[in-house]
Amino acid sequence: MLGDFTYCNPTKLYFGKNALDGLKGELGKYGKNVMLVYGGGSIKRNGIYDKVTAILRECGKEVTEDAGVMPNPTVEKLNEGCERARACKADLILAVGGGSVCDYAKAVSVSAYCGDDPWQKYFIRFEEPTCKLIPVGCVLTMVGTGSEMNGGSVITNHAEKLKIGHVFGEEVFPKFSVLDPEFTYTLPEYQMKAGFYDIMSHILEQYFSGEDDNTSDYIAEGLLRSLIHSSRIAVKDPKNYEARSNIMWTATWALNTLIAKGKATDWEVHMLGQAVGAYTDATHGMTLAAVSMPYYRLIMPYGVDKFARYAVNVWGVDAAGKSKEQVASEGLDEMEKWMREIGLVMNISELGATPDMLDGLVKATFIHESGYKVLTPAEVQSIFEQSM
Amino acid sequence: MLGDFTYCNPTKLYFGKNALDGLKGELGKYGKNVMLVYGGGSIKRNGIYDKVTAILRECGKEVTEDAGVMPNPTVEKLNEGCERARACKADLILAVGGGSVCDYAKAVSVSAYCGDDPWQKYFIRFEEPTCKLIPVGCVLTMVGTGSEMNGGSVITNHAEKLKIGHVFGEEVFPKFSVLDPEFTYTLPEYQMKAGFYDIMSHILEQYFSGEDDNTSDYIAEGLLRSLIHSSRIAVKDPKNYEARSNIMWTATWALNTLIAKGKATDWEVHMLGQAVGAYTDATHGMTLAAVSMPYYRLIMPYGVDKFARYAVNVWGVDAAGKSKEQVASEGLDEMEKWMREIGLVMNISELGATPDMLDGLVKATFIHESGYKVLTPAEVQSIFEQSM
Repeated sequence: MLGDFTYCNPTKLYFGKNALDGLKGELGKYGKNVMLVYGGGSIKRNGIYDKVTAILRECGKEVTEDAGVMPNPTVEKLNEGCERARACKADLILAVGGGSVCDYAKAVSVSAYCGDDPWQKYFIRFEEPTCKLIPVGCVLTMVGTGSEMNGGSVITNHAEKLKIGHVFGEEVFPKFSVLDPEFTYTLPEYQMKAGFYDIMSHILEQYFSGEDDNTSDYIAEGLLRSLIHSSRIAVKDPKNYEARSNIMWTATWALNTLIAKGKATDWEVHMLGQAVGAYTDATHGMTLAAVSMPYYRLIMPYGVDKFARYAVNVWGVDAAGKSKEQVASEGLDEMEKWMREIGLVMNISELGATPDMLDGLVKATFIHESGYKVLTPAEVQSIFEQSM
Repeated sequence: MLGDFTYCNPTKLYFGKNALDGLKGELGKYGKNVMLVYGGGSIKRNGIYDKVTAILRECGKEVTEDAGVMPNPTVEKLNEGCERARACKADLILAVGGGSVCDYAKAVSVSAYCGDDPWQKYFIRFEEPTCKLIPVGCVLTMVGTGSEMNGGSVITNHAEKLKIGHVFGEEVFPKFSVLDPEFTYTLPEYQMKAGFYDIMSHILEQYFSGEDDNTSDYIAEGLLRSLIHSSRIAVKDPKNYEARSNIMWTATWALNTLIAKGKATDWEVHMLGQAVGAYTDATHGMTLAAVSMPYYRLIMPYGVDKFARYAVNVWGVDAAGKSKEQVASEGLDEMEKWMREIGLVMNISELGATPDMLDGLVKATFIHESGYKVLTPAEVQSIFEQSM
C-alpha cells in the first residue's frame, strides 16, 4: 500500500434469494415520488417489474416510469430523464436493470438540478456535482459492471462519436442495491458469459500495473480464483445458485474501488475494447475478451514478474525449474484455455470488425500511460490485427 | 454465497503517510465539543497527541479529555466516560489509540444517552441502541483488532468476572478512521507480533467453518497470503513501510464483516484464548497463538477438505500424490513454522498459565457450535494441556 488513499463505500447491499425484501425498508427513508428507471422491458417478461411495482404500491409511492434506457445510455436520453425527474419531483430514482440502467440513474441524479448541460459539465469538463442530488437505489438484473456499488457512469454522445465515463465520488454511489442472483437467471447465455469476462477484465486492469507489493493484488487474486472456479460451473449449469451468487458478489468487489487502493492501475484493455465497441456495437465484455490475449502477450515481457506471479497464484502453474518468462507464458496459456472453455469471443472479426476498420480502430484507441508498457500506435494496430 | 446477507460499511478511511490531513475536513462536519479519548499516554510520548490536538485547536474545537482507557476497558470506566460525554455535550468522540480505545469510544457512543445501565442493556441483554448516538472518529495507533471499521465493542466487568463483546450495526461504526502505518512504528515488538496473530486469527476464525464454496473464502486466502508475506518482512525490518502498511490494511479487512458474508464462521480459538486471557491477563493475540495449533490439529480431521485447501492455496503445499490428510497436515506444519519464525508464543505456560488453572480454563471456555467440530470439555482440556 505505498500510495496514500481514502476509502469510503456507503452503499447498503441486500444480497440473496430474499434480497428484494430489503426494498421496503429502504423506500421508507425517501419521499413519496419515485422515478422507476428500466431498460427494454425484459423485467416485464421475467416478473421482476411486477415484484418491484407491488412493493412500491404497498409503500404508497407515487411512481413515474422512465423506461427504454438503452445498453449505451445516450445524452439525449439523459436530458429526457432529467426533465422527467424534475417534473415528478423525484425523491428517489429506482434503477431496475443492469449496469447501463444503474449508470443512467446516477447520471440523472447528478444532472437533474445541475443547472448546466450535463454532458459538457460532467463528461467533457469532468466537474464534480455541487447541486442537489437525487438519491439512487438499484435492483440488479445483470452482473458484470459493478455499477451497483460505485460512482461510475458512462454516457454516449452519438453526434460527437464519444462514449465517456465519469467516476463520481461516494455521494453519488447508489444508497442501496438489491442483489438477487436468481434475478440474473433469465439473461441470455451470451450476455452471461460476456459479463463473466467483464468481471475478469475489471480485476486484471487493476492487477496488471505497478511494481509494489500490495494487499490489493492479493485480494484481486482471491477474486480471480473465485471467478474462474465459479464460471466453469456456471457455463455448464447456469442455474447453479452457488456459482452464480459467487460470481455476482465477485463482480461487485471487482469494481467498487477496493482492489485499486494504494496501487497503480492500467485500463488499456478497456480502451482497446471500447474502440471495437464504437465500431461494431458489440457486447462490451466480448470486445474486452477479443483483444485481451494479444495485449497481455505483448506487454508480458515488460511486467514479467507480475505475469509470473499471476501464473502461479491464479492459475496454479508449477514454477519449478522454469524461467520467469516461461512461467508467465504458461499462465497466459492457461488463461486462454479458460476463455475458450467459457466460450468467449477471441477475435474481433467475430464481433463484426473488418480489416478496413483497422485505421479507425487504432485512432479510436486512447493510450493510457499506466500499464507495464505504453503502447505505440503500431502496437495497437498489431493487437487488432492479431485479433482479426 | 449460499446464505442471504446484507452488507453496509459506511466508515470513511484516510490511509497513508498523510492520513491525518483528513481529520480537519472530518472535524468540520461536527459541532464544537469534542471528547478526546486515549489510553495510558503513549500518544504523548510519540508525538501523536500533539499532532491531533494541534488540529483540534486549529478547528476551534472545545476539547474535553478522557484519558486512561485501559487495554481491557472496564464497565466503571465506561460509566465515567458516559458521564463525561454528557457533561461536555460531546458532538464527537475522537478515539486516539488501538482497538481498546476505539471499542471504548463506541461503547460510550451508544451508552451516554441510553437512559439505562449500559452493561446490562448491551452486554448482558444484548439490546440494540435506540437512543441518540454520539458520532465516533478514530486515529489508529495499533493494528490488529479491526475496531476502526466495525461495530465491535468489548467491555470487561471485573466484579462479575466477565469480558463481553457486542457487535453493533453500521450506525455505530466509526464515521471515519485515520490509518497512518507510521503511527504504529513505536509499538513494542511483542505487541506488534501479537497484533499480527490477532489478524491471522480473525481471518482463520471466519475461514475454518462451512462446507460451501464461497467467494468470501477466496478473499480470505488473499488476505492470509498478504499477511504471511508482509509479516515475514516486518519482523526483520519493523520500519518497512510497505510491509507495515499492507498489514494495517489487511487487519482492517480481516474484521470489517466482508469475509464472513454468506458463510458460517467459527470463533472457537477466541473462546479458548479469552479463557487464558481471563486467567493470565496476557496479551490477546498471544493467547490466540498459544492455543491455535492444538485446536486446529484436533479439528482438522473433521474439516479435512478445507484444511487441505488451506495448505495448497495459502501455504503452497504441493498436493501431488498425497492424501488429503497429509496435505492438510503439511499445511498446519507450515503454519506452525511461520508462527515460530514470527516469534509468537506457542505455549500458554509462557503466558503464565499453570496446571492448577486447568479446571478453571476449561470451565471458562465457551463452546461454540459453529466450527468443524463441536469440542467436548475433555477436548478443551486436552488443547490446554498440549499448550502447557
